[in-house]
Amino acid sequence: MIVIGGSAHNGIGQSLAKILGVKFYEVEHKVFPDGESYIRIPMDVMGEDVVVVQSTYYPQDKHVMELLLMLEALNALMVSNVTAVVPYLAYSRQDRRFRHGEALSIKVVLQAIRHSGANSLVVVEPHHPDALAHFEGDARIADPIPELASALKGINDPVILAPDKGALDRAQRLAKALGADYDYLEKSRDRVTGEVSLVSGPTEKLRGRSVILVDDIISTGGTMVLAAKASYEAGAKEVIATAVHGLFVSDNTIERIKAAGIKRIIVTNTVPQTSPHVEVVDVSPSIARKL
Amino acid sequence: MIVIGGSAHNGIGQSLAKILGVKFYEVEHKVFPDGESYIRIPMDVMGEDVVVVQSTYYPQDKHVMELLLMLEALNALMVSNVTAVVPYLAYSRQDRRFRHGEALSIKVVLQAIRHSGANSLVVVEPHHPDALAHFEGDARIADPIPELASALKGINDPVILAPDKGALDRAQRLAKALGADYDYLEKSRDRVTGEVSLVSGPTEKLRGRSVILVDDIISTGGTMVLAAKASYEAGAKEVIATAVHGLFVSDNTIERIKAAGIKRIIVTNTVPQTSPHVEVVDVSPSIARKL
Repeated sequence: MIVIGGSAHNGIGQSLAKILGVKFYEVEHKVFPDGESYIRIPMDVMGEDVVVVQSTYYPQDKHVMELLLMLEALNALMVSNVTAVVPYLAYSRQDRRFRHGEALSIKVVLQAIRHSGANSLVVVEPHHPDALAHFEGDARIADPIPELASALKGINDPVILAPDKGALDRAQRLAKALGADYDYLEKSRDRVTGEVSLVSGPTEKLRGRSVILVDDIISTGGTMVLAAKASYEAGAKEVIATAVHGLFVSDNTIERIKAAGIKRIIVTNTVPQTSPHVEVVDVSPSIARKL
Repeated sequence: MIVIGGSAHNGIGQSLAKILGVKFYEVEHKVFPDGESYIRIPMDVMGEDVVVVQSTYYPQDKHVMELLLMLEALNALMVSNVTAVVPYLAYSRQDRRFRHGEALSIKVVLQAIRHSGANSLVVVEPHHPDALAHFEGDARIADPIPELASALKGINDPVILAPDKGALDRAQRLAKALGADYDYLEKSRDRVTGEVSLVSGPTEKLRGRSVILVDDIISTGGTMVLAAKASYEAGAKEVIATAVHGLFVSDNTIERIKAAGIKRIIVTNTVPQTSPHVEVVDVSPSIARKL
């Protein structure tokens, strides 16, 4: 087995190869003056079992395209098997047709990955596990909850709070890993405006305790801010936010989260981070467990 | 038949529908704050024969993805047939593996278009006609040379000059449409640096005449500038540049072309143009001839 890092592997390629005790190579890539990507596999890979690592954070479409180009080039070089490791899978939130006539975007992405030559797929914590059913091959989910739990050790008597019912399973897993209990909020999102509001709040359980919010993605931060406010209103002593994928899409997302009284922000390296306010956990061990 | 314009149809959708005498609709599209595209087909299309128009100029990967999303959504709505009209086909220059280990990018794009649900494909003047063989369906090439010839009428005794041998067939077609004669240059391009140099120059034929350079793409403008200089050195009276796809990738491409003494720049609307120095010809009639 060898590991090849794509244009957007964000260090996970090296880390994974080290854990697995195999060789790591980087793909040759550039962008032409017109904006088209160029991909070349510069080493001999014939007959190899290849793990190609490419996250698909912003610019998502370019990173997806570069993954497809790598898969095509690898297959043309007659590798024996290709596993695509996609730490952050773009379009995983468009996993249903919420309105008539919508594209099922995740299906398009997964089918393109399959048809371009990936035999297997590993994704870190997609928005819904069911989404991977659109990959017509062997699809596995890497669970980085143990890695996030390690970063949260030492917090006294925490309570894990799912900011919506969709995040409940994740909250339960984190609670179990930390030996803590959990609670959840119910929110509703307007599909047209994207605005989020709270349907039912937290229980008395939060009073005087350290609340750890957990979600799959922090995007605009709206959900975390709403949950933090509700937690403090319910008497929380402090609030910590953790998520697998830290998108932080607006310039002021992190400031807004800090302003809501969130003491720590902990995410993984599926998406690159630049802010000193964000603690980053390596997901590579969770991926290695699936290879 | 109905025509649906994608996020990058650049007016060709309406123009095509008008020529064909059929209804035109625009797809619903937006980009989420994180950079992911959203596509929805807002009208009833069940059982329809749909022509979807989406050019794939910069940002190419986003426009390709949005085309794939439209194709998926249309097929889910049970249309009877989908023809993808891609006026400018991105990645069409990576139609061979120039170096060992390279991705055959055009194959990836065409296979994704096919697998996402396009039964047929119409492309305006791809870099090499053979590239479309990677589309495992009915692929047709729209030839806009008659439209470009119309824009060039009135030039007295012109000579058509292919800036390299690859453009010779195109030059011959334009010469025939204008009842003119033609000549060609031979250039060589360094695959690594991308630098272009002239291997053999123009003949005596150009002396005192209006030279019309014709190519498929103007990208950085290097080829056109080189050919214009060679033409003037060979005694040309004036030089005009025409191409199907005007990418003009650098900020100063058009200035460089003008500075080389090129009097007119004529391209088609497969790519949007903003400069007042560029004359734009509508390719829609050439597409309509293929539908």
